[in-house]
Amino acid sequence: MDPRDAGIGEGISEVIVTTKSAAGTPNAAPIGIISQSTKKGERSYFVTLYKGSQTLANVLETGRLAANVTSDAVLFVQTAFEDLPQECFKDFAGMPVLTEANAWIVFSSDLVEERPQYLRFHLRSPAVKITRREVKAINRGLNAVIEATVLATRLEMATSEQERDTMRREMQRYASIVATCGGPRENQALAILQAKVFKDALV
Amino acid sequence: MDPRDAGIGEGISEVIVTTKSAAGTPNAAPIGIISQSTKKGERSYFVTLYKGSQTLANVLETGRLAANVTSDAVLFVQTAFEDLPQECFKDFAGMPVLTEANAWIVFSSDLVEERPQYLRFHLRSPAVKITRREVKAINRGLNAVIEATVLATRLEMATSEQERDTMRREMQRYASIVATCGGPRENQALAILQAKVFKDALV
Repeated sequence: MDPRDAGIGEGISEVIVTTKSAAGTPNAAPIGIISQSTKKGERSYFVTLYKGSQTLANVLETGRLAANVTSDAVLFVQTAFEDLPQECFKDFAGMPVLTEANAWIVFSSDLVEERPQYLRFHLRSPAVKITRREVKAINRGLNAVIEATVLATRLEMATSEQERDTMRREMQRYASIVATCGGPRENQALAILQAKVFKDALV
Repeated sequence: MDPRDAGIGEGISEVIVTTKSAAGTPNAAPIGIISQSTKKGERSYFVTLYKGSQTLANVLETGRLAANVTSDAVLFVQTAFEDLPQECFKDFAGMPVLTEANAWIVFSSDLVEERPQYLRFHLRSPAVKITRREVKAINRGLNAVIEATVLATRLEMATSEQERDTMRREMQRYASIVATCGGPRENQALAILQAKVFKDALV
């Protein structure tokens, strides 16, 4: 089976990346998996991991990561800001994966680029398992949770108060989309996000 | 089978609504289906249809509409601005539906509210057909196409040049997310959107 069958399309797929340390401690974080078409019509997979992140530390120790495909808003927010409890993980192909995910893709990683702020890895030898296929309509509230989470994780990297103000206004707009369009999971995710970083932003 | 099984979750589900006129001419437009939990834990479905739209005219003539569940960016943009060719439709439960959709839900509609700009209908007696279950990772490019399309359809309702400027800046931001994160369908959708309404917006 191919990562494409597990929902990793061309472009950047937002997934929860799970890893483990050499000592076996699992970690989960929302990260984009980059998929590019090669000239032969095959696909190449890459990931950019930021220095200082636990995911990067673990990948450097073990050379592997798992992409967990999910559309659960709460998982994206939780893994952006919290450690998941041990019972959220199970084992697949020797790696911790999320029980609740719809598919798992375990990759081996080769370092291909080093930059001041991040390392870039080529991902190869995927082991793929699909746990659940579904039909799901687009929910703008889910999309808004993802965008607000991306903004929240970048807020502290902002270099000026003006930039932070712009980001906070954006977040407020996304919060109102969640309130209008979201279901229970999106609203729960927004509440976690607000408790973590939105307090100052939502006047 | 229940609309929930066909991907219509609580909150607002963005789908392509297909209808037909009394004479049988099909129409398709991106519209949100509202799903609310009742006290008994059941679901109620509603839709808001704007005056002047072909969808509203058709629903008033036939009393029925079909929700087509899809995550194809191109379909959302096309149906927002163009008539689909006849060969995109097939018949399900006596209604035109989109061949490419992952699920179809045909509803009967009862008018429950009239406002100056729109009518609101309660949707009942769903006939549900799932044509394809899949696993699909979140793609921020897809989300950005949806948001840009929503903005584009509201651009001409803006009441001031300042409001239009703000919306155009938002659209530019979404266009850059599509360029970074989208796959071929998202980029194709953006190209259609740009040809239709982005020309002035993308400097």
